[in-house]
Amino acid sequence: MSANKPRPERIDPQLVPKVVVSRLSLYLRELQHLVRDGRATISSSQLGQLLGFTDAQVRKDLAYFGHFGHPGIGYRCDELITEIRRILGTDREWIVTMVGVGNLGRALLRYKGFAAQGFRIVAAFDADTRLVGASIEGIPVYALDRLREMVRQQRIQIGLITVPAAGAQQVADQLVAAGIAGIVNFAPVTLSLPPQVRVVGVDLTTELEQIAFAVANRAASR
Amino acid sequence: MSANKPRPERIDPQLVPKVVVSRLSLYLRELQHLVRDGRATISSSQLGQLLGFTDAQVRKDLAYFGHFGHPGIGYRCDELITEIRRILGTDREWIVTMVGVGNLGRALLRYKGFAAQGFRIVAAFDADTRLVGASIEGIPVYALDRLREMVRQQRIQIGLITVPAAGAQQVADQLVAAGIAGIVNFAPVTLSLPPQVRVVGVDLTTELEQIAFAVANRAASR
Repeated sequence: MSANKPRPERIDPQLVPKVVVSRLSLYLRELQHLVRDGRATISSSQLGQLLGFTDAQVRKDLAYFGHFGHPGIGYRCDELITEIRRILGTDREWIVTMVGVGNLGRALLRYKGFAAQGFRIVAAFDADTRLVGASIEGIPVYALDRLREMVRQQRIQIGLITVPAAGAQQVADQLVAAGIAGIVNFAPVTLSLPPQVRVVGVDLTTELEQIAFAVANRAASR
Repeated sequence: MSANKPRPERIDPQLVPKVVVSRLSLYLRELQHLVRDGRATISSSQLGQLLGFTDAQVRKDLAYFGHFGHPGIGYRCDELITEIRRILGTDREWIVTMVGVGNLGRALLRYKGFAAQGFRIVAAFDADTRLVGASIEGIPVYALDRLREMVRQQRIQIGLITVPAAGAQQVADQLVAAGIAGIVNFAPVTLSLPPQVRVVGVDLTTELEQIAFAVANRAASR
């Protein structure tokens, strides 16, 4: 395979470990920072070093999807950004909704990072009738009984669940019934979903536990 | 090793893959839900099934830390909760601070999940002098120049960075100088830190990209 012709076929996502896909996000973000800083090319070892990975790891991860380096040059940052966005499917816009506009929901609606990477939140939903009709950061808040209608009308593909744990499964069922293809679940509970719906769980406490583990065991091994 | 005597030694965290530690968090959360629902015991295959893993995966992950099952019974939920919290280091309280009380910071201060797992946020910091002196959910907001003093006085071990990307490295440097042991970075930027300080990066957009990848490739393979 030539360096100039990355593999055009779609990948079976089942064959790519999840951790590889999550590292693609890290590579993408780092490359975007590099381009903003005026950098045109980077080697696998430099990219790895910036993120704390080996050059072998970087090359192996990217090899799942094709050959993107150029002999004597390394990666062209812009080109690799384009390729990674194509692989992730973020070379086009994704239409997103959010259910639950409590504190976390509001914070995420105000977060600029989603739109910057191609995720456009077009509608929010909440069970609290006092919030219905409001607009947060220009995003209208609807009653939950309009979910199915809005998902179809606006061609919403991804749903963010930001309700408390106790209500998350019911909201997930409603999103599935409305025809959503993927869910990002911020509620600290495991959802039960049909296999055709993709789900990623975000448990914010997990990150704190990772740090606790590292710090606790570091302290003990001194 | 007997089933009743889990390995007492501390583990070298370098020898345990990060993904195993993050699954410990998932096991813990699921076990806590099970206990809340009145469940006393569970098998590795049942626990795996609830989370979408194989029973072999569950057993292999836990085997890094000892043998916790009982023949003919499986795991005792309460016992395994105690063990996982001991492994993660969350069998005691962790004192936490947050730098940056914008939208995301405020949402996290109001999030009840951290305290429920043993992480107590005792102080917040912000560069905006209008916020200094305020109290959010009972947590006082201080000026950044008091960071070192408060970290020492309150024995703060973990710092959450919830400032915009452009300010994150400077805040990280201040947390390190103040003597913090671990950082959870919510800013979408890779931090450069001395090796003795542990860091976990939380990039909220990554989760959306995971879903985009799964949905995009699912749609194409139909």
